[in-house]
Amino acid sequence: PIRRMLNSLPPADVAHLLESTPPKIRAFLWQLIDLETEGDIIQYLNDEVQAQFLREMDAEEVAAIAENLEADDLVDILQQLPDRVIQEVLSSMDHQDRQRVEHILAYDEDTAGGLMNTDTITVRPNITLDVALRYLRRHENLPEMTDHLIVVSRSDEYIGVLPLRRILVSDPSVTIREVMSTDLEAIPASMPDTEVAKLFERHDWVSAPVVDDEGRLVGRITIDDVVDVIRENADHSLLSMAGLDEDEDTFAPVIKAAPRRAMWLGINLITAFIASAVINIFEGTIDKVVALAVLMPIVASMGGVAGTQTLTVVIRGMALGHISKDNSRWLINREVMVGAINGLIWAAVVAVAATLWFDDRTIGVIIAAAMVINLITAALAGALLPMIMDKLKIDPALAGGVALTTVTDVIGFMSFLGLATYFYA
Amino acid sequence: PIRRMLNSLPPADVAHLLESTPPKIRAFLWQLIDLETEGDIIQYLNDEVQAQFLREMDAEEVAAIAENLEADDLVDILQQLPDRVIQEVLSSMDHQDRQRVEHILAYDEDTAGGLMNTDTITVRPNITLDVALRYLRRHENLPEMTDHLIVVSRSDEYIGVLPLRRILVSDPSVTIREVMSTDLEAIPASMPDTEVAKLFERHDWVSAPVVDDEGRLVGRITIDDVVDVIRENADHSLLSMAGLDEDEDTFAPVIKAAPRRAMWLGINLITAFIASAVINIFEGTIDKVVALAVLMPIVASMGGVAGTQTLTVVIRGMALGHISKDNSRWLINREVMVGAINGLIWAAVVAVAATLWFDDRTIGVIIAAAMVINLITAALAGALLPMIMDKLKIDPALAGGVALTTVTDVIGFMSFLGLATYFYA
Ligand SMILES: [Mg+2]
Ligand SMILES: [Mg+2]
Ligand SMILES: [Mg+2]
Ligand SMILES: [Mg+2]
Ligand SMILES: [Mg+2]
Ligand SMILES: [Mg+2]
Ligand SMILES: [Mg+2]
Ligand SMILES: [Mg+2]
Ligand SMILES: [Mg+2]
Ligand SMILES: [Mg+2]
Ligand SMILES: [Mg+2]
Ligand SMILES: [Mg+2]
Ligand SMILES: [Mg+2]
Repeated sequence: PIRRMLNSLPPADVAHLLESTPPKIRAFLWQLIDLETEGDIIQYLNDEVQAQFLREMDAEEVAAIAENLEADDLVDILQQLPDRVIQEVLSSMDHQDRQRVEHILAYDEDTAGGLMNTDTITVRPNITLDVALRYLRRHENLPEMTDHLIVVSRSDEYIGVLPLRRILVSDPSVTIREVMSTDLEAIPASMPDTEVAKLFERHDWVSAPVVDDEGRLVGRITIDDVVDVIRENADHSLLSMAGLDEDEDTFAPVIKAAPRRAMWLGINLITAFIASAVINIFEGTIDKVVALAVLMPIVASMGGVAGTQTLTVVIRGMALGHISKDNSRWLINREVMVGAINGLIWAAVVAVAATLWFDDRTIGVIIAAAMVINLITAALAGALLPMIMDKLKIDPALAGGVALTTVTDVIGFMSFLGLATYFYA
Repeated sequence: PIRRMLNSLPPADVAHLLESTPPKIRAFLWQLIDLETEGDIIQYLNDEVQAQFLREMDAEEVAAIAENLEADDLVDILQQLPDRVIQEVLSSMDHQDRQRVEHILAYDEDTAGGLMNTDTITVRPNITLDVALRYLRRHENLPEMTDHLIVVSRSDEYIGVLPLRRILVSDPSVTIREVMSTDLEAIPASMPDTEVAKLFERHDWVSAPVVDDEGRLVGRITIDDVVDVIRENADHSLLSMAGLDEDEDTFAPVIKAAPRRAMWLGINLITAFIASAVINIFEGTIDKVVALAVLMPIVASMGGVAGTQTLTVVIRGMALGHISKDNSRWLINREVMVGAINGLIWAAVVAVAATLWFDDRTIGVIIAAAMVINLITAALAGALLPMIMDKLKIDPALAGGVALTTVTDVIGFMSFLGLATYFYA
């Protein structure tokens, strides 16, 4: 009964079910699924769960699955496999399919070329709509997400597109040249997939042609795959801010989850020790005034929170393509202003609270000064660190947070305990 | 020359340019834009920048802009305006347009009804393709993102869809009933937009029909608007984890950015004081062993990092719809296991480091024990807090982080300093 249900549910729903189950149940469900359905389902799984199942298959099984897949989805799967298996699968395919797949495989996974499919329907500009309609009617069906025919020259150079919805309202006797539109610029195969996603978002495309360096049509990208890119990138930012992997399987077993997270904890341990070393410098002062130990986490943690806000705004602004050389100076200024204002406001509150708590006006002045210093530093670091990392090709979503809290911890403890050492000397 | 450039660039690009400029330049550029183009551009701006410009307009200007907009985009804009202005704009519209807009306005902004447009092209099942084709040819053009005609009964009940690409390959003499597909289930108008987005992602739809409670067609949702929902939700998770607003304008002026962030800092200040209060309990112990003040931030911060990892995995899992009652127990167990294992590993490292640093074996044992306790607590809190918040309809992305670090700070300081008080007594 479960078997029958699994094999009759829509493949995308089965994929979601598999992603939502712990490892043992997942493996159990998977072996209930028929080999013919496996291909339909596997294309909807995230990379990590996909890889889990693929690891158990031999080349023959992958080849069997390959038959039901579109070229782009098959390539996504092949890219998870060792070269030897890829070769075996390719050699089992018929010539035309194999060529298509090899064509896409030649491009980087995260470029337009790696994202495209080869299922284009092309026409020449000089034929009439009537001829085009007769040509279309010879097809059994058109590929999904076909919203336009692609108009190419004799040497396959991209010229323009002819939306299906325009074919349906136009006089059949006009030529394609007269009704096609040429303002959709083709996507170069080497464009990074994040740029492709921005173009689709901005221009509300359903599909778009992809061309090589010579302007020849090599494929097309469809919105469903772009949506996956958008989702993956959004996930990537969220997860990597916590030091997690973009493909993180929600139900990864302990054996996989633990080592991955351990690394991140290790890196944070180093920065925690750096903070401790800073505190250690002022051991003598703390020994004299124990209240310092009680209050010092406040300065560091407020700096961390304020800095994270700036960092998040800047990382998101960079992801949306809002930030450039021209406006980054304005942005840094604004962040410093905000940091200074909020630093002053909360410093005043904390100063009063600390003075009353420990009945000591000096400690109020010290913590207020330290907080203003740390919140301004936090704003500067939160804005500059991601910009610098971006230049150095370090992912700011991954490294930004650790670097930032190291700065805010060090400056927080240093300014608070340093001022205290000076005032209580 | 700037004026001419602004008015000739694609509206989506101008919108992006406006979003990428500081307030003064933004206002300057905006007043260079012609009133006719303003409508095209404003629909592409994010809510916050949109609201900025709308605030300066009177009802007449909004009405002028309204003419060039699709109903769904106009509704997005109207929802930003005070009721009085909405009424004025509506009363300036012609009857049919007004009805359309009021129809969408009746639904909540974040439901399928609020997301839909009314530009459906409908046909009856009993006509032939040939008749449908002639009917289509009477249109000047079809709405963008029209990938299928919607098949409805005489009383407007949704029956199925007829993809344009199927019309083009089918024999014109067959009836629509014979070639339509009925497996696309219509979306209820009351469905939350996040659910709509999941359906589009999972089934790779370009557009989908929306029906009311009686199953009558009321509109359709298109993928471009769904992409915006996906982007907004992803942004929302990222921004709210830092206590920022979902519509955060990257170039919001100081006067707007400062108060918004101040609130968040205030909330964090309270939690920081709670942590300080915990430390204060053990003032006497710290006075005796100053090394405790040096090492105590390590325990708290490692707990915070580990807990944030769990929190992020769970929040994302919930957003993807992976987590349910059936599997949450497994997930909590896994997190506790991972917390315990990583706690033990790094506790061992820290124990050795602390022992060597302060030449005191007791402090090594104490910090190791405290770290294991705090990392297990962190895992539990990181998994349970978002699940509980979700039940209480509190946004875990917003409140999860503060709640979590409060727990890890309190338990971190408490266990470390508590054990120290016991051992050094
Ligand atoms: Mg991937
Ligand atoms: Mg794919
Ligand atoms: Mg690919
Ligand atoms: Mg868009
Ligand atoms: Mg697909
Ligand atoms: Mg595809
Ligand atoms: Mg909004
Ligand atoms: Mg919209
Ligand atoms: Mg909106
Ligand atoms: Mg809306
Ligand atoms: Mg999809
Ligand atoms: Mg639109
Ligand atoms: Mg729309």
